[in-house]
Amino acid sequence: MTGYFITFEGPDGAGKTTVINEVVKQIQASCKRPILVTREPGGSKIAEKIRQIILDPANTEMNAKTEALLYAASRSQHVSEIIEPALKRGDLVISDRFVDSSLAYQGKGRGLGIKQVQAINDFATGHLQPDLTIFLDLDPRLGLARISRARAGTEDRLEQEKLAFHQEVYAGYQEVNALHPDRVKLVDASQELPQVVAASVKLIASTLPEIFEK
Amino acid sequence: MTGYFITFEGPDGAGKTTVINEVVKQIQASCKRPILVTREPGGSKIAEKIRQIILDPANTEMNAKTEALLYAASRSQHVSEIIEPALKRGDLVISDRFVDSSLAYQGKGRGLGIKQVQAINDFATGHLQPDLTIFLDLDPRLGLARISRARAGTEDRLEQEKLAFHQEVYAGYQEVNALHPDRVKLVDASQELPQVVAASVKLIASTLPEIFEK
Repeated sequence: MTGYFITFEGPDGAGKTTVINEVVKQIQASCKRPILVTREPGGSKIAEKIRQIILDPANTEMNAKTEALLYAASRSQHVSEIIEPALKRGDLVISDRFVDSSLAYQGKGRGLGIKQVQAINDFATGHLQPDLTIFLDLDPRLGLARISRARAGTEDRLEQEKLAFHQEVYAGYQEVNALHPDRVKLVDASQELPQVVAASVKLIASTLPEIFEK
Repeated sequence: MTGYFITFEGPDGAGKTTVINEVVKQIQASCKRPILVTREPGGSKIAEKIRQIILDPANTEMNAKTEALLYAASRSQHVSEIIEPALKRGDLVISDRFVDSSLAYQGKGRGLGIKQVQAINDFATGHLQPDLTIFLDLDPRLGLARISRARAGTEDRLEQEKLAFHQEVYAGYQEVNALHPDRVKLVDASQELPQVVAASVKLIASTLPEIFEK
């Protein structure tokens, strides 16, 4: 039995974590597979240690390549320890961020190149691809405004970046999404939460009808 | 002004750290450039934090790709924060391990492939190459015997690996050395320390005669 792999992507402040929690609440009764929710960076003991280095606001001297390699290292461990075993068991795995985040943030936002960062991540993940990626589409200006209201003074190192950086990241996501039209589906994240959740649930049900009770 | 970059490589127990200290003592009076001694993994604040994750004996579940990516991340930071600025100032930089270690340990020892690990490291270092690499050549059996005498019970995660692993690493070094005959020079590290140091000093003086008083 093989499982199914769904990722949520989007700019900071798009509401990925909240939406995932609500989606899981709504689908778990009818889903025939165990659901494993995980997140990046992190998701395993070693990956969480790497996450602490990446996000520590004190690490201001970190260069872009180090950042990209740390994300890839954390992801490699996340895949081998958490995601792959769950997929082998047949679970539905839902991850808050995956490779596309690195392509957008480090590849485009930091200017390292989407192709170069893809190569590092292909090495890290053994070319693992999600069955479905839900992109929570939101103007980065709105995302930043949400974050500064919710987490004033406690933003992590990447959230502290200026608007220009987040606009580059958003442009990066658009490039990545255009490369994978079959895998990536957009949901308008400027809607109210119930609408965003409903649209996400609908996409999951239509992409993976075989794992839901009729 | 550009500086000069020397690396020391070799199996665990070959005596790299001790040899480097003695070499520096002997050359510093006649060397016209400031000498910066550094080491891997580590060498900068962020790189040392990554080093702690790599070498922690508790992290037994770390996969080989994560290990290779963490070394590359640490190295990228080491290059941008420490090595490149020193080379720009015109220093003589001496590093205890560099890319060749990853090619031998992760590429060959862990079986990831020397070419694949080279690609990750080319990304990390921007293709930076040492002017001279001194390979302290020692049968890995002798190296391990030295370590178990000197550090019984306090070996780090990689030193704890079995002989078969260290023999693969040694074979990896031989492949790498054969690829770069102009850069890599061998010193027989089974000799007594004064002989190893003298041979290393001689190689440095003959490779970089321009930085020494006559």
